[in-house]
Amino acid sequence: MGIDPGLTRCGLSVVQAGRGRAVLPISVGVARTPVDAPLTHRLLDLSQGVSEWMDEYQPDVVAIERVFERGNVSTVMNTAHAVGVLILAAAERGIDVHQYTPSEVKKSISGNGRADKKQMTTMITRILGLSEPPRPADAADALALAVCHCWRAPMIARHRQAEELLKTQQRSH
Amino acid sequence: MGIDPGLTRCGLSVVQAGRGRAVLPISVGVARTPVDAPLTHRLLDLSQGVSEWMDEYQPDVVAIERVFERGNVSTVMNTAHAVGVLILAAAERGIDVHQYTPSEVKKSISGNGRADKKQMTTMITRILGLSEPPRPADAADALALAVCHCWRAPMIARHRQAEELLKTQQRSH
Repeated sequence: MGIDPGLTRCGLSVVQAGRGRAVLPISVGVARTPVDAPLTHRLLDLSQGVSEWMDEYQPDVVAIERVFERGNVSTVMNTAHAVGVLILAAAERGIDVHQYTPSEVKKSISGNGRADKKQMTTMITRILGLSEPPRPADAADALALAVCHCWRAPMIARHRQAEELLKTQQRSH
Repeated sequence: MGIDPGLTRCGLSVVQAGRGRAVLPISVGVARTPVDAPLTHRLLDLSQGVSEWMDEYQPDVVAIERVFERGNVSTVMNTAHAVGVLILAAAERGIDVHQYTPSEVKKSISGNGRADKKQMTTMITRILGLSEPPRPADAADALALAVCHCWRAPMIARHRQAEELLKTQQRSH
């Protein structure tokens, strides 16, 4: 599952990793909360929305964008609060969470850490073999996060194996 | 209930507002999560910790510190994620949430928006009629937040009443 976190619009996607670099799109959507509602209601709305997705698709892993301190302070903080709630929903279900920066996702998908929105949409459309760009447009980022994790997961797994091996060797010496 | 949010240490306090500026301390403590644990586990720990407090004391209101983009990026973001989880716990229980900036709390308690930690502890000890400074020391901030809300709540209520009145008058014209 890929999540592009946000309180006003939160991109959600589910994909199935195949052999090699093959990735199959399963579902894509956007969870919205009303801008004029109190923060308490918005976080509760978002939590319920993403929980329904997690219960329906039961993902093995959630890949979520890492928030940075850029742009409008209040928007950044709202997004960071949203991330807390999204990660908690995964944690409550025992789902593993990985965070990726926007440039990690861009580099993984397009080979260029500074790819623009159009390039990313084109690449995601091609990678997933879609007949047209994913809709809603916001959800393309959520798909990119999911694909990014599918491609990086084998590397992460190998890295963990190597670390485990190293620990075992250190213990036996 | 006053909450000084944090992932490593989260200050928690419960007070009872009395007549005028009288405030009675009920409980104070700190919820901790292990620094070396994954973010998923830490947010789940914190959520469970604060939920137990809320279920035990059933507060009418939660006053929580507003996070700003100061200091270490990763610490700020972790605190902002924690705030999301803390507000969600209140929202799930239908508890009203108010956020205050550190300077709002300092000004309300000591009359000085730039009061230092020592001044704040002295004031809180005096206001709550404690025989010695609150322990753990971290929790003094959580008590200050709770007292700040008790003192500001009547003003907030009057402000809301005035707004309601204004809306009613506008409708009748």
